[in-house]
Order: sequence, then C-alpha cells, then structure tokens
Amino acid sequence: MIILFICDRKGLFYFAHKDIMKLPESVKKLIDEPNIAFFATLMKDGSPQVTPVWIDRDKDFILVNTAKGRIKADNVKRDPRVALSIADRKNPYSMCTIRGKVVDITEEGADSHIDKMAKKYTGQDRYAWKKQTEKRIIIKIEASKVYPKR
Amino acid sequence: MIILFICDRKGLFYFAHKDIMKLPESVKKLIDEPNIAFFATLMKDGSPQVTPVWIDRDKDFILVNTAKGRIKADNVKRDPRVALSIADRKNPYSMCTIRGKVVDITEEGADSHIDKMAKKYTGQDRYAWKKQTEKRIIIKIEASKVYPKR
Repeated sequence: MIILFICDRKGLFYFAHKDIMKLPESVKKLIDEPNIAFFATLMKDGSPQVTPVWIDRDKDFILVNTAKGRIKADNVKRDPRVALSIADRKNPYSMCTIRGKVVDITEEGADSHIDKMAKKYTGQDRYAWKKQTEKRIIIKIEASKVYPKR
Repeated sequence: MIILFICDRKGLFYFAHKDIMKLPESVKKLIDEPNIAFFATLMKDGSPQVTPVWIDRDKDFILVNTAKGRIKADNVKRDPRVALSIADRKNPYSMCTIRGKVVDITEEGADSHIDKMAKKYTGQDRYAWKKQTEKRIIIKIEASKVYPKR
C-alpha cells in the first residue's frame, strides 16, 4: 500500500494506492519453470471452462498467450474473473492455485511472446503451430487469492 | 437416446430417456491412469476456482473424492456446473477438457473409495492423509462437452 499526502493551500489531502498482490516465491518458481498451468474462465452462461496453457509472468502479473477467437479469449473479454492451478511437472503434489482477474488483453508483443513461450516449453526458437490467420494476444492477470501463501 | 412406447387402452404413449454422454476412449484412458485432474468449480460470487484432484470414473460418470467443508465441496453443492482438464503425466500435450454438471454427492462408499484412489495414485493401500474429523464425499459428474471427441 502506498499512501500519498498532498498539501495545498486549503489543507492536507491524501489518497491511497493499493499495490498489486505479490506472488509468493514458490508460485513464481512454478510459473518460471516449464510447468503447464490449468486456466479456468467463465462461459457466457456463467459455467466454468478449464484448459491447459503455457504460462509466464511480468513481475507479479501472470501472463497467458492465446489467439483471438479462442473460447478462453472470448470468455475473459466478457468476464475478467479467472483461476489458475499449476503443478510441478516433476512432482504434481507441489502445486499452487490462484484466483484473480484479467486487467489487460493486448496484441502488442504477443507474437514475440509466443516465441519466447515456445523456447521455454519446447526449446525451439519459434512457435511452430502459429496459423497464418491467427492473431495472438497476451492476457494479463492480477492475482487476488493465492495458495500456498509462501 | 432410448425411446419407450407404451400402449394402454386409451392409446399409444411414449417417453424419451436421454442417455448420458459417453466418454471417448482417449478420455477414459486419461482418467484410468494415475493422472492429476484440474477441477474447476464456481465460488459463491460466480467466479471460478480450480484445484488439482485425483480422479476416477464409474462407466461414463466422472468421480472426484473430497472432504465435506472444502471449498470445492461447498461450491458444487451450491452450483453443480463444473469443468475438468486432465493432461497425461508422461506427455502433457496429450490432454482432455470436460464440461459438465454434478449429478450426485454422497458419503456412501467414500472412505473405501479414497483408499482405492490412494492405491491408484500412491501405490499405498490406504489414504494416509485422512483426518479423524473429516467426512469424505464422492462427487459424481455427468459430462456435457468433451474434447477431444475420440
């Protein structure tokens, strides 16, 4: 939490800026290693959908790269509430669960980002499955509940 | 679909019974092997939650064993709409996604069932983590959308 105090001629004002939730070190480790995440979004009727995804982070924001028009892309555009769970590929009992919301969806940098993801998960320099017509997007997620807490 | 025709003195009646969706062989295989499933349910406010679970099936129904009072147990009691995704522990690119609804929640047989699950996933005859106070339950799920279709 950052609290700014501002003083003008009429008196002292303040406003508070809530920092985004910090991800615990164990969760950052699960994200940074090439573990598959399971990403839950909401269908139009409010029912859940869950699919495996590659995952990345920008400091404490979680990033999912997908293509425009996919079910999860349409879902998060309509309702930003999401959940994720990641298990260690070498030990599935080392895991985390995250609930949060999508704070940004962008095409900017999404093509180079999917290549970065391909490198992380497959060792290849480029994402081999890209279709000519598809537009990649990055979904940026802010966590609100994370387990484990450390 | 089963359609029954019944004829009484006043005429011919019929009623239709919709069979439950059959699980494809590839999905049955993912369930029958000791792969972790990721189970999405809905929180009270309608947001999604997702956690790793052991998984089983009774023919084409999917079974999840949990304890009363856990978030997912409370969630499915309130809203039966759920989703699951399972990736092969040896090849995470062999996966399935399932959407469906909970059709039964029962304590009956849940203690012996969690031992069966422990055998499948850990090789141990008994579930080692059972707390004295916890009541195990079996959540029975009927699939409505399954990918892949074969």
